[in-house]
Amino acid sequence: MDNRPNPPRKITILGVGLLGGSIGLAARRAISACKIIGYGHRRETLDAALKKGAIDEAFDQPENAVAGSDLVILCTPVGIFGKLIPQIAPALLPDALVTDVGSTKRSVVDLAQKLLPNPARFVGSHPMAGSEKRGVEFARADLFQNHLCLTTPTPQTAPAVLEAVESFWRSLGMKITRLTPQEHDRLLADVSHLPHAVAAALVAIQSEPGLALAGKGFLDATRIAAGDAALWRDIFLENHDNLRTGALALRDQLDHLLKLLDAKDGQTIKDWLEAAAARRKLMEKRPPT
Amino acid sequence: MDNRPNPPRKITILGVGLLGGSIGLAARRAISACKIIGYGHRRETLDAALKKGAIDEAFDQPENAVAGSDLVILCTPVGIFGKLIPQIAPALLPDALVTDVGSTKRSVVDLAQKLLPNPARFVGSHPMAGSEKRGVEFARADLFQNHLCLTTPTPQTAPAVLEAVESFWRSLGMKITRLTPQEHDRLLADVSHLPHAVAAALVAIQSEPGLALAGKGFLDATRIAAGDAALWRDIFLENHDNLRTGALALRDQLDHLLKLLDAKDGQTIKDWLEAAAARRKLMEKRPPT
Repeated sequence: MDNRPNPPRKITILGVGLLGGSIGLAARRAISACKIIGYGHRRETLDAALKKGAIDEAFDQPENAVAGSDLVILCTPVGIFGKLIPQIAPALLPDALVTDVGSTKRSVVDLAQKLLPNPARFVGSHPMAGSEKRGVEFARADLFQNHLCLTTPTPQTAPAVLEAVESFWRSLGMKITRLTPQEHDRLLADVSHLPHAVAAALVAIQSEPGLALAGKGFLDATRIAAGDAALWRDIFLENHDNLRTGALALRDQLDHLLKLLDAKDGQTIKDWLEAAAARRKLMEKRPPT
Repeated sequence: MDNRPNPPRKITILGVGLLGGSIGLAARRAISACKIIGYGHRRETLDAALKKGAIDEAFDQPENAVAGSDLVILCTPVGIFGKLIPQIAPALLPDALVTDVGSTKRSVVDLAQKLLPNPARFVGSHPMAGSEKRGVEFARADLFQNHLCLTTPTPQTAPAVLEAVESFWRSLGMKITRLTPQEHDRLLADVSHLPHAVAAALVAIQSEPGLALAGKGFLDATRIAAGDAALWRDIFLENHDNLRTGALALRDQLDHLLKLLDAKDGQTIKDWLEAAAARRKLMEKRPPT
């Protein structure tokens, strides 16, 4: 007997941008006879998603989009969840699975547990795929292939729900790592949110003559700064406490370097640079997440 | 009548690593009947450079390597220039052109003007090409193609020398921008040296579980941190004053962001992120330097 959860027959994607659109394309390829419903507040986006084949039906009201779906995925910016969840709550099937793709997890998990009719049937997800591009026109069926999806169950999450949601992400080619919402936000602040803030700051301090001299190193180091400002504002606001802790740790490292430079302590500077280089080189040797 | 400077007939490359080796390969392809001499302190490096065809003759004493050359290029780490220039000074042809490939320019220009027999025949160069790789085994004839070379003449530099050195870099496919040594070090601190320090600091603050979650954004943002530690230590020590100024400007930007987060000022945070994103996106549209 096959104990794997049944794949969903009807999926609702709330927000059909790069991630939502890619989920539609990937689910259509991975799951046979699965109907995909999209919600968006802009008609042009919905039309583009329909035309691209990312969704089968489009709605401009979230409560209409979730009716009858057995998997509902929140793909709007995290800042909208507080308004979106109460809208969909009354319209959900009692046994619908609900998840999201937000880049921070504490607040959405909180909101879901407070506002959903059956919090046990929610689990937070963070599929780590995407790019600085935005919009359904960049959606790809293989966006998730071999990438990592972080799931953030709580004691309230039903084990079968966790299994079913993870099974869905696996069917899109993802590998799963489970974290608490708190661990997620703390680790992601250091490895994703702070690097974004730093990249934006590195761009901000440049003079125009300096920018004209930028080489590949600068372009690589600041690529993420081209990301969507509204999306990152929401992430920063949601995760401000962890972002602050990370920024202070970064400042300590730079202060340490400046002190070593004052002391002309070349050996310790070299050791510091070598430790970072060794750690960074190790990362090249593993498969991308 | 052709007013372009005559190409060199004999070039000495002091230090045959990635840059020195690539200059040898590129010059051989660009300049017919040009003899290329290499100096290095390790026999294996010289043998590898000979085998690769990056140099025609190898010497393990710099004064022997420069004898009879009309173009001498210092390609060792900048920290060695103080020892190297006095060694070669007595052996140079009176009309030899001397340049370098150092990533900082004030100190080498100073040393050259103090220690060379004919400072008018020196001009500092900074060919902006390379990678986090090191060693002659990664040398490529096309390394410089379409990249920017910064030259840093001073009032002491003979105009004909500047023309001849720039003409050499152009023959390797480079575009030229002239700066004073002071401008060079100030601008490069912000656009290259500080980003390197920040990338190393971003790697240093991560926990192992955090590193396991790193995605493409983190890998891009920290790629430069894998660079050669000894080389970057020298750059940091040479340019510590400008690096400090840049680090303080970066701290001001991050403090500004943290204050906006405290105030939950989403609009100003979005404006700040949008300004950085707009600047960064503009950079994608121009040819790489």
